[in-house]
Amino acid sequence: VDDPVCLADYERLAEERLEEPWLGYFAGGAGDERTMADNVEAFGRLRLRPRVLRDVGDVSTRVTTLGLDLALPVLVAPVAYQRRAHPDGEAATARATAAAGTAMCVSTLATATVEEVASAAPDATLLHQLYVFRDRGLTVELVERAVAAGCRAVVLTADLPVVGKRERELRGAWALPEQEVPAVAAARARGSAGHALSLFDPTVDWRYLEELSSSVDVPVLVKGVLTGEDAVLAAEHGAAGVVVSNHGGRQLDGVGATLDALPEVVEAAGDRLQVWLDGGVRRGSHVAAALALGASAVLVGRPAVWGLAAAGEEGVRGVLEILRDELETALALLGCRSPAELRRAHVAPA
Amino acid sequence: VDDPVCLADYERLAEERLEEPWLGYFAGGAGDERTMADNVEAFGRLRLRPRVLRDVGDVSTRVTTLGLDLALPVLVAPVAYQRRAHPDGEAATARATAAAGTAMCVSTLATATVEEVASAAPDATLLHQLYVFRDRGLTVELVERAVAAGCRAVVLTADLPVVGKRERELRGAWALPEQEVPAVAAARARGSAGHALSLFDPTVDWRYLEELSSSVDVPVLVKGVLTGEDAVLAAEHGAAGVVVSNHGGRQLDGVGATLDALPEVVEAAGDRLQVWLDGGVRRGSHVAAALALGASAVLVGRPAVWGLAAAGEEGVRGVLEILRDELETALALLGCRSPAELRRAHVAPA
Amino acid sequence: VDDPVCLADYERLAEERLEEPWLGYFAGGAGDERTMADNVEAFGRLRLRPRVLRDVGDVSTRVTTLGLDLALPVLVAPVAYQRRAHPDGEAATARATAAAGTAMCVSTLATATVEEVASAAPDATLLHQLYVFRDRGLTVELVERAVAAGCRAVVLTADLPVVGKRERELRGAWALPEQEVPAVAAARARGSAGHALSLFDPTVDWRYLEELSSSVDVPVLVKGVLTGEDAVLAAEHGAAGVVVSNHGGRQLDGVGATLDALPEVVEAAGDRLQVWLDGGVRRGSHVAAALALGASAVLVGRPAVWGLAAAGEEGVRGVLEILRDELETALALLGCRSPAELRRAHVAPA
Amino acid sequence: VDDPVCLADYERLAEERLEEPWLGYFAGGAGDERTMADNVEAFGRLRLRPRVLRDVGDVSTRVTTLGLDLALPVLVAPVAYQRRAHPDGEAATARATAAAGTAMCVSTLATATVEEVASAAPDATLLHQLYVFRDRGLTVELVERAVAAGCRAVVLTADLPVVGKRERELRGAWALPEQEVPAVAAARARGSAGHALSLFDPTVDWRYLEELSSSVDVPVLVKGVLTGEDAVLAAEHGAAGVVVSNHGGRQLDGVGATLDALPEVVEAAGDRLQVWLDGGVRRGSHVAAALALGASAVLVGRPAVWGLAAAGEEGVRGVLEILRDELETALALLGCRSPAELRRAHVAPA
Repeated sequence: VDDPVCLADYERLAEERLEEPWLGYFAGGAGDERTMADNVEAFGRLRLRPRVLRDVGDVSTRVTTLGLDLALPVLVAPVAYQRRAHPDGEAATARATAAAGTAMCVSTLATATVEEVASAAPDATLLHQLYVFRDRGLTVELVERAVAAGCRAVVLTADLPVVGKRERELRGAWALPEQEVPAVAAARARGSAGHALSLFDPTVDWRYLEELSSSVDVPVLVKGVLTGEDAVLAAEHGAAGVVVSNHGGRQLDGVGATLDALPEVVEAAGDRLQVWLDGGVRRGSHVAAALALGASAVLVGRPAVWGLAAAGEEGVRGVLEILRDELETALALLGCRSPAELRRAHVAPA
Repeated sequence: VDDPVCLADYERLAEERLEEPWLGYFAGGAGDERTMADNVEAFGRLRLRPRVLRDVGDVSTRVTTLGLDLALPVLVAPVAYQRRAHPDGEAATARATAAAGTAMCVSTLATATVEEVASAAPDATLLHQLYVFRDRGLTVELVERAVAAGCRAVVLTADLPVVGKRERELRGAWALPEQEVPAVAAARARGSAGHALSLFDPTVDWRYLEELSSSVDVPVLVKGVLTGEDAVLAAEHGAAGVVVSNHGGRQLDGVGATLDALPEVVEAAGDRLQVWLDGGVRRGSHVAAALALGASAVLVGRPAVWGLAAAGEEGVRGVLEILRDELETALALLGCRSPAELRRAHVAPA
Repeated sequence: VDDPVCLADYERLAEERLEEPWLGYFAGGAGDERTMADNVEAFGRLRLRPRVLRDVGDVSTRVTTLGLDLALPVLVAPVAYQRRAHPDGEAATARATAAAGTAMCVSTLATATVEEVASAAPDATLLHQLYVFRDRGLTVELVERAVAAGCRAVVLTADLPVVGKRERELRGAWALPEQEVPAVAAARARGSAGHALSLFDPTVDWRYLEELSSSVDVPVLVKGVLTGEDAVLAAEHGAAGVVVSNHGGRQLDGVGATLDALPEVVEAAGDRLQVWLDGGVRRGSHVAAALALGASAVLVGRPAVWGLAAAGEEGVRGVLEILRDELETALALLGCRSPAELRRAHVAPA
Repeated sequence: VDDPVCLADYERLAEERLEEPWLGYFAGGAGDERTMADNVEAFGRLRLRPRVLRDVGDVSTRVTTLGLDLALPVLVAPVAYQRRAHPDGEAATARATAAAGTAMCVSTLATATVEEVASAAPDATLLHQLYVFRDRGLTVELVERAVAAGCRAVVLTADLPVVGKRERELRGAWALPEQEVPAVAAARARGSAGHALSLFDPTVDWRYLEELSSSVDVPVLVKGVLTGEDAVLAAEHGAAGVVVSNHGGRQLDGVGATLDALPEVVEAAGDRLQVWLDGGVRRGSHVAAALALGASAVLVGRPAVWGLAAAGEEGVRGVLEILRDELETALALLGCRSPAELRRAHVAPA
């Protein structure tokens, strides 16, 4: 694969260039990896219903969601330890999203501070993904720094009160590179002990969301919502949006595909919440399907890592360009001039 | 495979005789080629319900649709660049359809003029497939020439406002053989520039259909209709028929199989439109199933190319004869003396 | 496989011992052989619902249907040309069914006369399968001879007005062994010409059934009924029973599995017809499932041929004994002391 | 697999260490082994619906059912002949369940007396699995001895009036090791003859359950219930609980997966019966799914044997620890602090 044509090409390139244990870290999921596979397969269970003979001489992929003006409705999902995928790490990803006109969600487990990412990519639109440390003071500090660095939203990850059972990781004798993660280093400096992931607080609940939402000036999204019930609670406790996510199948295997959960979340959200989705997006037509079902945007995690591992910033940009081109084609072939014209009737169960 | 027994035998012969990139061109579909595969698989999801002890001593496969009297309800779909499958190209295909008593739809991207095809096969029943050039004058000219050459209908392709992402084609460094396509040469002569496929107009809409229908004396069919909604619009804007088609899975991957879309189109069409179908027809029993669900005829694209690549005119004739024989057997075994006796009750979901 | 444990073991033995073209003849089906495979798979789509703590100290597999008292509700289906499977041919099969306490349906295309079969196995319970010759006088004669030889029912095959497209047969250059079939020889002697299978009359209809039923003193069954509609017609035209059959998938590929068709036939039959089934029965639990859905008996064709090819009479007996033992076990484990206790509630969709 | 991470690792270890015919004995099922496979696959057909932002800082896997206080809702199912899996046999299993804080159900076909098991593992919580011998006096004696040895419940196996057709066993020329089974030896000493499994009484019915329930001071469960109808009868005849079980797919192939039967049994049981389930449990998330559907506990048979074969007591303990850890993680990720918080809404059809 010299000249990648689709995201699967980037996946193959990444598999060639990444070494264990990091290949396993980025590629793996929890348990039997059924949920991880199902995220992708779910898109194959829908069928698209194209409309014809509509003037599509001028098609735009641009959207606005939660105040973000995006050239394409595909953000880069929070992915930890990006320097393990490529020496340029998060900075490369941020520059690529800026070039593509979209946004990046910087992980709490980034291998760079949010300030470093922001200064490496001044044009980038950044969001801040939040794991809540048991050390709540540190958590407040991280959020404040992120907002000060220009992050446009806080994405509170709700599906990792404990870490999922990722067997590819368990089979190797290795530790997460804590020393490379500034947030973990900060926790250590403030006296926290234990494994990096054990620093996070499993008691976080909806009241915390309410406090967080009322204490920051940017929108807060809850990431990891898979039910209509939780979408209602998110709206009631101050969220501006939710991300329908199962953490890329890395947390609880057996959970349904995000695309299958999307309709009930959209219905429960009504006008109160923006609904984003991640998990299994590999094609522009997948983006169109998710938007037709009511999502405002999607995020890609592993595909961004594939691009990063394959060719750094240029690789991430390549991934985003493929998705943009594919989405543009899909919109035209569905008879839509823009994502806003996508309707539920553009999809049907397969 | 010396003596082909079924269409799959012709497919294997064609795979032996065609070389890349043309094998990939004719065989490939868009994206992950799911829609292309699903077109075939959809026939396997139906089950036939045969009726017994009906006198089937005399079975005919003959049908009439849109004024065409066909010895079998299987036309040859428009396929571009047929000289790349066999030196005799469209002329061979036309002669084979004449021998079989059916009709051929000549592509705008044919590697012969419609006049050449008509004169090479004076007994052939021809239809004209239309891509609308940005140069509308040229488009008018092409339609007029086709009708003058005896084409009995215009088949307006509606599902190619932009070209689908056909990855087999993208992986090779080659260009479409524009120089062999008279219509493209004519566009060039009139000053059009750019890739061959970029000469087509993505702004074509239902008003264009209305203009076209009122300006020609032959029936106009819209090819690429996959929804009941668009069937209604086709009827309202002057079409005499629609072809339920996803362009053989070459345009938007993820679109449903044509057989799955057929019932809603038939229901919406009512008495106002003839409904034809292409995509995935590989057996006479498939023809019977489509007709039982309300189609008046089907078209075969790739199978005709397989025959053409395998043995020129004789190969296309062989393909059509197999389909006729299989359909005759299927009709008898369903308890029908003719296609007109096929009813919805002859099929059920598998 | 020295000591066959299940029918699949006999299948493997038969595959070792039969040679082409006869292996293909007995094993093959029509078209893509989907219906043939689906007959078996359909049993896997049901789930059995066993009842427990019922006294099953004494389980019988005996049934009565259409006046036949059978030690197990599994007859041997009509299979042509049995001497091509084993030199002892139909005589061996008849003796095996007598030993097992069940019945054999002798094919019109048997490689022995019905009188020869009857005298070779005086204890056998025989039925006569009927293909209707264009020479109706010969047909009358064959039926009269069969009844005179002791056949207890006539099984009118309704699903072969023309022969299905069996591609394994078409690929070899061979002819059916007409000279070995007394009925065909008789037709020849009376002046009929053409292929053996072309001697049969495709114009046979429900009126013929009525004539036949009123002219013979034994029950007439219609074999090849797959719809409720035809079950009603069979009852109205004098049949005593129907066999839900798709000719082992040898006639029209794409037809549904017989087990899937069974419920609608049973419902339409009501009390007026006995319903038998063939196709895909490979286990005693399959027999139980068919009976739970309302069949009174099932027939096995290929499994009998496997036994015959493997070991002549002993092989057919082995096949029937396995089915009896498996059925007995299945009944006990379903909580039934006899087939009569099987209810629709013993099965559910999988 | 040096350091087993999941139950499948233990399965591979057991396959390496067990030899035929015992590998086949423990691993095999009845017939085509569809039910055996379906037990596992059924868990993959459900999807879990996790709830987020619930304080799961303190998660317990502890449950109480039928007076048993269990550290995790996973018991070891009755498995015969455990000394054929490991020289330490049932004693090792009992000690492992004690260490894990759960219970073991000792088989009538144990290769140790219940007294030996109890004294080898004084802390173990034991139940007694009962096959009813034709020699009812012996049966009474076995039950009395079990209760006297401290067994906390009697588990009456109802799905083995006759033995299923286990073809892996039939293909080898070997006999069950009767001499190692004290209960069989006792039957022999009292004059019973015939195969070990033929010593059991196929006439046992609901009245027997009533007698048994009223004659022992511990709860009686009926194992092998797969229908709501039988759950009602179990409640009416004195059972305290039922085990939804198909004997690990070893009895009647074609029976549905236990997970698929669970909802109807739970609904029929209402408050009158505790419902347990065995069959196909391979993950902590499977335990959670079964409990969400209304089971109070599950049992594992083959996984315990894998642990036993792999490493004796330590292996069984390893298996139970993996299940406990996985269940704890699953509960936290479903938003539950304990099994009691699991609700039907935590699962949905896949």
